[in-house]
Amino acid sequence: MAVYTEVGDEELAHFIERYRLGDLLSCKGIAEGVENTNYLVHTTKGTFILTIYEKRVDPNDLPFFLGLMEHLSARGVTCPLPVRDVSGRVLNELAGRHAAFVTFLEGMWPKRPKVEHCLELGKALALMHIAGENFSLRRDNALGLRGWRPLFDKFSARTDEISGELGQLVERELSFLEASWPTDLPQGVIHADLFPDNVFFIGKKLSGLIDFYFACNDALAYDIAVCLNAWCFEANFQFNATKGRALLRGYNSVRQLSSKELEAMPTLARGAATRFLLTRSYDWLNTPDDALVARKDPIDYVRRLRFHQSVESVGDYGYEQAR
Amino acid sequence: MAVYTEVGDEELAHFIERYRLGDLLSCKGIAEGVENTNYLVHTTKGTFILTIYEKRVDPNDLPFFLGLMEHLSARGVTCPLPVRDVSGRVLNELAGRHAAFVTFLEGMWPKRPKVEHCLELGKALALMHIAGENFSLRRDNALGLRGWRPLFDKFSARTDEISGELGQLVERELSFLEASWPTDLPQGVIHADLFPDNVFFIGKKLSGLIDFYFACNDALAYDIAVCLNAWCFEANFQFNATKGRALLRGYNSVRQLSSKELEAMPTLARGAATRFLLTRSYDWLNTPDDALVARKDPIDYVRRLRFHQSVESVGDYGYEQAR
Repeated sequence: MAVYTEVGDEELAHFIERYRLGDLLSCKGIAEGVENTNYLVHTTKGTFILTIYEKRVDPNDLPFFLGLMEHLSARGVTCPLPVRDVSGRVLNELAGRHAAFVTFLEGMWPKRPKVEHCLELGKALALMHIAGENFSLRRDNALGLRGWRPLFDKFSARTDEISGELGQLVERELSFLEASWPTDLPQGVIHADLFPDNVFFIGKKLSGLIDFYFACNDALAYDIAVCLNAWCFEANFQFNATKGRALLRGYNSVRQLSSKELEAMPTLARGAATRFLLTRSYDWLNTPDDALVARKDPIDYVRRLRFHQSVESVGDYGYEQAR
Repeated sequence: MAVYTEVGDEELAHFIERYRLGDLLSCKGIAEGVENTNYLVHTTKGTFILTIYEKRVDPNDLPFFLGLMEHLSARGVTCPLPVRDVSGRVLNELAGRHAAFVTFLEGMWPKRPKVEHCLELGKALALMHIAGENFSLRRDNALGLRGWRPLFDKFSARTDEISGELGQLVERELSFLEASWPTDLPQGVIHADLFPDNVFFIGKKLSGLIDFYFACNDALAYDIAVCLNAWCFEANFQFNATKGRALLRGYNSVRQLSSKELEAMPTLARGAATRFLLTRSYDWLNTPDDALVARKDPIDYVRRLRFHQSVESVGDYGYEQAR
């Protein structure tokens, strides 16, 4: 949500010379992306995003993220395509930080996703999972099952500052997840953060997926579980099974879900809710009051988690068994 | 420097329908403009800036600002052109605030202005002054001579929080300005805030002027005095007479400065330095620590003011009398 690193006109004109992007026309810092600084750049060749990677991104992960976008782009997924410079590099240095140009994707993210959006999302997610097969690099999910307890340990003594019941709730949920987490599901590259603000539409047509900076290797169905949390609850935290059905149907129409994946869905959804509950709680307790980033209320995810705990099967998410 | 008012995709798609701007493709909040929220909007017809006017702007002034941009545009000044909706209006409501679309100007502002920039700036400023003749609306300069003392009165008891010498310096300077301010100079529409970030260049060519939200009626030469302060000092607060000469020569080549204007320049420059010293001091004392806007050090303008106090004639700014 902020421009952390300022880049001057001369510095940028010099930087852009190593790319075949034509002449620089304009460059605006955009209020997008929590982790990095992003500029929207017009050149005589088109529109691009210049991303300057800030401290929270591990530079060792950048070849995975940028390589993945190239891999997916080449296989028909509309996502930002990193631009190679004259020597073939996608990653360079600017203002003392790592930086990359990617193509700009037109589109608006849906502030209030509708059923049609969820259907398109499901299809696009499945296409992305298929396109991600054979990607040569690997990245473990640092915010997957094994990362949750260490993250919780960092703030478990302070959960009362958020809510009196939070500590025990998370403690019990982690025990459940550690005992029940499915280990034999189809694996692959997942987006892992496919919230509405990362999915663009022009009119009703999905025009692209962005922000692959949490992408990693994990159970493909876990990505769907993230989307069930991020797309299918109403503002009052009621689960909308019509949206869930559309998401699952859209996905299944492109990549058929196995019975194991369907069975695991309630557990995966609990895990996904727990993951966002943990990171939001941590950020809530550790974001200074004067930060440029708006804090998000972790309790939203307590409510989602409670719903998932009440779910008996994937049918409760709207999934209809083929007849 | 921030997006104060968020606009959702549906709200914007609905809003844009009343303009003949084609279909909405994307909309990014940009980190530009201290007072208002600005979005960079791509449509099938082109690129536009959507400005949402925040509380600090008096809605009664908006017809002046927007009308001026139309007036100047029609007379060859490259500045944002307000877009009229189907019923001919340039000002509408969005998210409970006044809002307008203007055309987007390509260009980069010079972070470290060079002599050539100052020359182009001088020409463009003179062209703007000429183009502004006959503009039918009027707006007094709220931050002109008569506004300075009332503004100072708001924080004069707290100047010690900035610097021990500030109170007496301003007090004396205001007395000098009130006694010496020239009243018989050519008047017209001035920009009044033509800092480098409001002047775009593509390569070495000036591509446009933006941000007319301080524009008003005042002495034309006062606009030059603002530019002498904003463009012609080095980072160490040394005045660069080569830049001053270029600015004055560029201006004079388009609109000849009268001998009264030339004589008044040192006083006008003191006034301009005082104006920015006052507003920066006020903001310094009144901006909450957690604000999204970076505070600018008022002392920078004490240094500029001290230089102007030492100036004997416009020659000290680099001006060369025609021979």
